[in-house]
Amino acid sequence: MNQKSGKASMKPEQPVYILNSASIVGTKEGQGPLGLLFDKVGEDDLFGCATWEEAECTLQKEAVGLALDKAGLKPEDISFIFAGDLLGQSMATSFGISTYQIPLLGVYGACSTCGETLTLGVMSIAGGFADKCICVTSSHFASAEKEFRFPLEYGNQRPLSATWTVTGSGAFVLGSEAAGVHGKARARITGMTVGKVVDYGLKDSMNMGACMAPAAAATLEQHFKDFDTVPEAYDKIITGDLGKVGQRVLIDLLRDKGYDISEQHMDCGIEIFDGESQDTHAGGSGCGCSAVTLSAYVLKQLEEGNWKKILFLPTGALLSKTSFNEGMSVPGIAHGVVIESIG
Amino acid sequence: MNQKSGKASMKPEQPVYILNSASIVGTKEGQGPLGLLFDKVGEDDLFGCATWEEAECTLQKEAVGLALDKAGLKPEDISFIFAGDLLGQSMATSFGISTYQIPLLGVYGACSTCGETLTLGVMSIAGGFADKCICVTSSHFASAEKEFRFPLEYGNQRPLSATWTVTGSGAFVLGSEAAGVHGKARARITGMTVGKVVDYGLKDSMNMGACMAPAAAATLEQHFKDFDTVPEAYDKIITGDLGKVGQRVLIDLLRDKGYDISEQHMDCGIEIFDGESQDTHAGGSGCGCSAVTLSAYVLKQLEEGNWKKILFLPTGALLSKTSFNEGMSVPGIAHGVVIESIG
Repeated sequence: MNQKSGKASMKPEQPVYILNSASIVGTKEGQGPLGLLFDKVGEDDLFGCATWEEAECTLQKEAVGLALDKAGLKPEDISFIFAGDLLGQSMATSFGISTYQIPLLGVYGACSTCGETLTLGVMSIAGGFADKCICVTSSHFASAEKEFRFPLEYGNQRPLSATWTVTGSGAFVLGSEAAGVHGKARARITGMTVGKVVDYGLKDSMNMGACMAPAAAATLEQHFKDFDTVPEAYDKIITGDLGKVGQRVLIDLLRDKGYDISEQHMDCGIEIFDGESQDTHAGGSGCGCSAVTLSAYVLKQLEEGNWKKILFLPTGALLSKTSFNEGMSVPGIAHGVVIESIG
Repeated sequence: MNQKSGKASMKPEQPVYILNSASIVGTKEGQGPLGLLFDKVGEDDLFGCATWEEAECTLQKEAVGLALDKAGLKPEDISFIFAGDLLGQSMATSFGISTYQIPLLGVYGACSTCGETLTLGVMSIAGGFADKCICVTSSHFASAEKEFRFPLEYGNQRPLSATWTVTGSGAFVLGSEAAGVHGKARARITGMTVGKVVDYGLKDSMNMGACMAPAAAATLEQHFKDFDTVPEAYDKIITGDLGKVGQRVLIDLLRDKGYDISEQHMDCGIEIFDGESQDTHAGGSGCGCSAVTLSAYVLKQLEEGNWKKILFLPTGALLSKTSFNEGMSVPGIAHGVVIESIG
């Protein structure tokens, strides 16, 4: 039987499989350490569009199309699409994927959204309500800077604690069968922990790693308790976009709670760019960061047997231009998903 | 067994119950035709806060608190909260309900969000992943005008096709038992139809009823097919906020598809204000409109046996300030939820 596990976690009776997935990124991500692993790298960051927002719509559209192709499926094979992005009123989602005409359940969890879409996708399939689902998220450096910070033309200087929003989109096709017309599935999802809003009162939108780390720590502690497990049970514990500052805060906070994750911890934002040569400071961030890293790099490690079991924990900073301008803090949220190799 | 029904619908094996619910509204809504039915009417629309956004946060917080009280439950009795609003990055949700420390799954579907939260809440409970859930949405006239249109101080004139964003929040406690510590449940949810993005290319953000009506028509047609049913099977078919213009468009579009809903159709936006005396033009709108009307008026009719079975269909216009300014259209989406009296 599917079950609630502890206070905030869930365990599907049967695992739900990631049948296939796709990643598409911008030029800068293509030049980074994971560059060769992405399915598609854009020639320029407008992706043939007139605006940054349209470019981000195109990212979602292409990621979903590619994921469907790789899985050998058509839009009509998909029951629901769970999707989200960072823009006001989820603009990239509303305009990006409508061509597929798949029933849409829109999601918002800032940069934790990839974890939330996977959680809901698993619930819908393991609950018997869907055959196959797609989970997709995106972000775009230029649309995000415009939405949250300063116009690019202003040439604002960024402190070393700032992260660089990833231009990219990752899409995942979920289903209940380990193998089928889609070939062999890439991995299986065996548990989820839903996060709460955690607010330490930090107000610096140029240091989102520190703002999100307490939420990541809270979800991790809850996860270990709910599943009665320890960090050593995972080959990797992979946060979304804490960056180098947030990573230190997370490891310290968890040490205070009695957990040492320093051996297992990895952060998608730290992996995706070379901070030194790419001038990205603390690391990458955005809804697209964890999604493309999961699709291109993490699932590959699971497929190749380098890792057996990981905890994927996208982290979100719940700020808006309005909340920032009104002097409010930047609360965080993080959702955890247990992903295992098919073996 | 829970099941997918047709192309876009779901049927839980056992109904999920609306254990209790609460509504809180602003002064104008309190003066409207449903005014006496709401649980709480604010004395002024700032609800004691310094900004419109904080006021909307307070709406969500109070609606959830009231719903918990009425159900005799505490925050720790709730597995998950599904929540959303209209503001950029769902600000009212991020800051409004964090005090309860309930694991949060944030949702965005514009004004269809209330239907989406109920759909996901039912999935989580019927799927065995949650004991009890809360679904909450909100909107606020002043924060919405600022987010989507003009500063209030500008005194912009509004065409007759415009709607008036409802200041209010509705919260619903869902569970699997018809009766318990929470008393007798208010109603039960027996089916859901998830909508697609439907874009007829309309660009008038002052006529959102016309923008959303094609999406409502598409979801209704899909619903009738998926459940092999007809409009006459429902005592009422209740859209969220089409208003008077959208209502005419919806009825006409469905007539072309072979369905006549003119007898059953009701719109929360038309019910909540007296357009003549309250100068609200086509009707009320917003995430809060359908939520407070469902809680205060629709569930009461089901409890009193005046209606046995209704289809609740909140409708959303997927626009943002950015999409509007970039000349894009206003696509719509609508999610349907079948609600029946306990009997």
